Amino acid sequence: MSKKVAVIMGSNSDFPVVKSTLKELKKYNVEFECRVMSAHRTPTEAADFAANARDNGFGVIICAAGMAAHLAGVVAGHTTLPVIGIPMKSKALEGMDALLATVMMPPGVPVATVGIDGAKNAAVLAVQILAVSDEKLAEKLAEEKQKMADGVREKDADLQAEIAQL
Amino acid sequence: MSKKVAVIMGSNSDFPVVKSTLKELKKYNVEFECRVMSAHRTPTEAADFAANARDNGFGVIICAAGMAAHLAGVVAGHTTLPVIGIPMKSKALEGMDALLATVMMPPGVPVATVGIDGAKNAAVLAVQILAVSDEKLAEKLAEEKQKMADGVREKDADLQAEIAQL
Amino acid sequence: MSKKVAVIMGSNSDFPVVKSTLKELKKYNVEFECRVMSAHRTPTEAADFAANARDNGFGVIICAAGMAAHLAGVVAGHTTLPVIGIPMKSKALEGMDALLATVMMPPGVPVATVGIDGAKNAAVLAVQILAVSDEKLAEKLAEEKQKMADGVREKDADLQAEIAQL
Amino acid sequence: MSKKVAVIMGSNSDFPVVKSTLKELKKYNVEFECRVMSAHRTPTEAADFAANARDNGFGVIICAAGMAAHLAGVVAGHTTLPVIGIPMKSKALEGMDALLATVMMPPGVPVATVGIDGAKNAAVLAVQILAVSDEKLAEKLAEEKQKMADGVREKDADLQAEIAQL
Amino acid sequence: MSKKVAVIMGSNSDFPVVKSTLKELKKYNVEFECRVMSAHRTPTEAADFAANARDNGFGVIICAAGMAAHLAGVVAGHTTLPVIGIPMKSKALEGMDALLATVMMPPGVPVATVGIDGAKNAAVLAVQILAVSDEKLAEKLAEEKQKMADGVREKDADLQAEIAQL
Amino acid sequence: MSKKVAVIMGSNSDFPVVKSTLKELKKYNVEFECRVMSAHRTPTEAADFAANARDNGFGVIICAAGMAAHLAGVVAGHTTLPVIGIPMKSKALEGMDALLATVMMPPGVPVATVGIDGAKNAAVLAVQILAVSDEKLAEKLAEEKQKMADGVREKDADLQAEIAQL
Amino acid sequence: MSKKVAVIMGSNSDFPVVKSTLKELKKYNVEFECRVMSAHRTPTEAADFAANARDNGFGVIICAAGMAAHLAGVVAGHTTLPVIGIPMKSKALEGMDALLATVMMPPGVPVATVGIDGAKNAAVLAVQILAVSDEKLAEKLAEEKQKMADGVREKDADLQAEIAQL
Amino acid sequence: MSKKVAVIMGSNSDFPVVKSTLKELKKYNVEFECRVMSAHRTPTEAADFAANARDNGFGVIICAAGMAAHLAGVVAGHTTLPVIGIPMKSKALEGMDALLATVMMPPGVPVATVGIDGAKNAAVLAVQILAVSDEKLAEKLAEEKQKMADGVREKDADLQAEIAQL
Repeated sequence: MSKKVAVIMGSNSDFPVVKSTLKELKKYNVEFECRVMSAHRTPTEAADFAANARDNGFGVIICAAGMAAHLAGVVAGHTTLPVIGIPMKSKALEGMDALLATVMMPPGVPVATVGIDGAKNAAVLAVQILAVSDEKLAEKLAEEKQKMADGVREKDADLQAEIAQL
Repeated sequence: MSKKVAVIMGSNSDFPVVKSTLKELKKYNVEFECRVMSAHRTPTEAADFAANARDNGFGVIICAAGMAAHLAGVVAGHTTLPVIGIPMKSKALEGMDALLATVMMPPGVPVATVGIDGAKNAAVLAVQILAVSDEKLAEKLAEEKQKMADGVREKDADLQAEIAQL
Repeated sequence: MSKKVAVIMGSNSDFPVVKSTLKELKKYNVEFECRVMSAHRTPTEAADFAANARDNGFGVIICAAGMAAHLAGVVAGHTTLPVIGIPMKSKALEGMDALLATVMMPPGVPVATVGIDGAKNAAVLAVQILAVSDEKLAEKLAEEKQKMADGVREKDADLQAEIAQL
Repeated sequence: MSKKVAVIMGSNSDFPVVKSTLKELKKYNVEFECRVMSAHRTPTEAADFAANARDNGFGVIICAAGMAAHLAGVVAGHTTLPVIGIPMKSKALEGMDALLATVMMPPGVPVATVGIDGAKNAAVLAVQILAVSDEKLAEKLAEEKQKMADGVREKDADLQAEIAQL
Repeated sequence: MSKKVAVIMGSNSDFPVVKSTLKELKKYNVEFECRVMSAHRTPTEAADFAANARDNGFGVIICAAGMAAHLAGVVAGHTTLPVIGIPMKSKALEGMDALLATVMMPPGVPVATVGIDGAKNAAVLAVQILAVSDEKLAEKLAEEKQKMADGVREKDADLQAEIAQL
Repeated sequence: MSKKVAVIMGSNSDFPVVKSTLKELKKYNVEFECRVMSAHRTPTEAADFAANARDNGFGVIICAAGMAAHLAGVVAGHTTLPVIGIPMKSKALEGMDALLATVMMPPGVPVATVGIDGAKNAAVLAVQILAVSDEKLAEKLAEEKQKMADGVREKDADLQAEIAQL
Repeated sequence: MSKKVAVIMGSNSDFPVVKSTLKELKKYNVEFECRVMSAHRTPTEAADFAANARDNGFGVIICAAGMAAHLAGVVAGHTTLPVIGIPMKSKALEGMDALLATVMMPPGVPVATVGIDGAKNAAVLAVQILAVSDEKLAEKLAEEKQKMADGVREKDADLQAEIAQL
Repeated sequence: MSKKVAVIMGSNSDFPVVKSTLKELKKYNVEFECRVMSAHRTPTEAADFAANARDNGFGVIICAAGMAAHLAGVVAGHTTLPVIGIPMKSKALEGMDALLATVMMPPGVPVATVGIDGAKNAAVLAVQILAVSDEKLAEKLAEEKQKMADGVREKDADLQAEIAQL
């Protein structure tokens, strides 16, 4: 049976963006657990969750946090599972603070960082990771990739009509 | 048997940094293939390599590139395998160009980005991904994590002597 | 007969800005084709389009993309036609990500980059390129440059009235 | 009796810079302990140290770290003592990564951040904090401030000679 | 008796943000004084206030300013009390100007900088500083830290309901 | 007969970098003229040169300048020829100043900007522009693109040997 | 009799901001002329205006421009009068492009740069320059400085009432 | 008789760069005084110097400082003379910190900012300011501008020889 994905956010104010992560995981029928845990406000819970994640059946941990986004790094310090970081755009600095605080990890403790507010991509990456050893998920990913390409082609076709009327 | 890791760099001038990726993979006895392929100079090879990587036994693709670092993104466009991007620091802009060009991927096509020149971490992340379904690798990762912690503790002990003489 | 201009955008969400490119090309009666093609979602189409563009009568290719804007670079990898890149401002980072991902190309594969959201300028640059060997277009460019200057002069005159009432 | 100052660095490679912190603390005869502890490699030690610091007689904790500098934030999550963060300049990005990762803390968990590589200032700030309730330290700070001013005045005098020969 | 906290802002337009500082201080029953004083428009008042702050019973000075935020630095030049700087986000540059102008202080004159618009954190840091020698305040800080953690736990519980309905 | 390329630099200190432009143009047997002219120190010469460039047989103008790099923009204001800008890295800011000052042109007056210190690419772009109406140059470009790809392939082959000895 | 101030803007879209410059100049009864002239669209007018400004009775030239803000630099190239540059915030990059393009001038051709959108300050600086040799203007500046300080004091007084009700 | 120029630097470590300011002033036979005074270490001296500068015969004050460069702003707070700020490049951040801390002044208190390390330009700007009411200085400025242009022309001529040998 496929491993679960953990989705942790540093604050429930991140939920409107993180919702896309959950929806994308649902699309692939990947089981997940979603939690609010803070690297600074509930650090012990976050550490414990990370330390026990592999034993609890998780295969990947996704962490979303803004500003001095330490959540993914802290979680990565307590697990050997792949940790995906979503840097969240906050009120200032356009998300650059969260991006650098997430991605610039020291040697030995990587965080697989996706783009700023890249909630959907975090899910896709998690699925890709699980699919390394899961043929069915890999097929599903290929199908979705195909659909995505078809979507672009349709939009290209639609555009031609719009341009004709320019 | 465990999947192979592909390590692609955009230019052989990236090799001095990428060497750390290979050494780290060797430490885990993970089989790898290392190639020079350019998103701009040999785009067809890069695309073909990516498109066939899963069938050729690869589980993860690591891409290292500098400046307008398109390699990881281009490879990710042609595969559903997890793609890890290493943004390389170049002559100008301190690697910020490569970081943004690697990490800010559009929805549906993630690149798991590590820090600037994060060659060792790319390898660790690749191993973590393979270890999701490989108990032995997971154990080896846990051992290395332990060694890393012990290394910090030793340095902490050494420091005390040095401080005593301050 | 003058060559055509290809205008490619990475997503149809770019169309509101790219529309200015098309309008400007129309002003010069330059024939164009406008397409949605993605470096990451329909990479093969983009590559094929680029590879055949010269044979298909195109003289210049304009590419508009945001975030890790790889489209112009990927297209430039598959053609020897001049490729113009429009970095699009996205939700975060004020377009700096797209600017760096478009302009910082490796030696041998240039992208002629215009300013962030510089859709009109991409068209003017394309016309300037075609006008190198097209006297009529060159004259038309000179006329437009003259009109533009006259426009500034008119606004200068209008301003004097407004200031008088300050 | 005055409280002790804890000085923690994420890696012993930070010691050449952090040495200035220790020397400055010595100047004020403030007792300190200096440790290597990593937010990512020995997170449990760092958390334990922070959680027990007040009981162990510490009044301030200084944390020095580079890149995605999580150390100060992690420590601040486990203590109510004032935590001072020194963002260290690393190989890329001129220390901007460490600055943002240190200073942009979420509401409720501040880190008192000094400038990039601001090792001496971290010590002065720690002494200022202890001096809030320690008259003698406050006097010593005033003396040092006076000396610093005198130093500038001397350099101003020396400069006049140099300029005369220009 | 505990020392007072001074809260100075460079312009009364900063008050909507600085209000959070005052509210947080009230929560801890810490006495404060709040003033508008400008490093550039009323520099003498600012200097005098700083120079006499310790004698007037203050233990910490919080300074909020935007743009080329000199207020905290100027105040720090005239006192040996710990000075906390709040960089305010202004109309341009996302607060980066104020952050750098506040934090990058020269050796010997630190400013304890909190995040951009970090008004609440400035208060918490001030309380932490006073609590170094005030057991009751330290206990109150520990209680608040506990409440904050409980708040996160509640939100985590609430989230589970919301996710169930996704 | 093919048009000439003008190469202008703002200061002869730019020559060590600009030399690559000239060498690349020679490779294509494209005739060029190279000048030192400053937007700020010899603005009239620069304006006159630009205004007469088309009549004097030029097809493209390449401008290299650092810092507040106005040269390309000023030249573009006086001609309808395509103007290519090379932002030069200077002593501070890693070339970001020159990049923004070159690329962010107002509507109607584009500068085709290449990467920071992108001297070779400026030449390739100029040749691509001339090749729009010059079959032979287009063939030569295709040959060079082929050679470049072969170069990458050779380096890829060499790398295999090096890796075998790792 | 005192010299006039020239206020030039690159586009009449800058007028809403530049209006503050004119109002401030009026406050000091300094005579001014305000023009729309573009470094790129009417470069000859701009150059001529600058070249003749001293003879036409101007003492200072203020230039406001956004994006690749070349106007101040171009004007400075044609005059030995002090030139003040106002970098205008545009649609992207928060005005950083205009700031760098205005301030980073090469040796010998300075532009006295004020802050982003610093329209009022440009006027004050112009008046300060004229006041170097004009006692009355200097007195007026001192009066205004006094009023400004009084304004801060009033706001400080008002604030006390507001705080009392917190 | 012409007014004097004051040149103040925040630290004597700035002297190697500031020397160019003095040499340039000497070229114009403008009388100057050069001082080391710190906004943070000798703030009272700096304030007093600024407050009395006009009465002491100064016409312009040049301030050079790095990092959180407050010197020019503090001086501007105490005088109505034009204040020129030179942002100095320091160990980190490429001078961006000093640039923003110098230029982003609040309404009413401008600092005429030159480029990073723009020591020579600060002098030229000071001379331009004095020359507003000093015909002889104005003539000397025009001569130097002419020499500068001639210098570019000579270098252009020299370049032709160098290119011939390429």
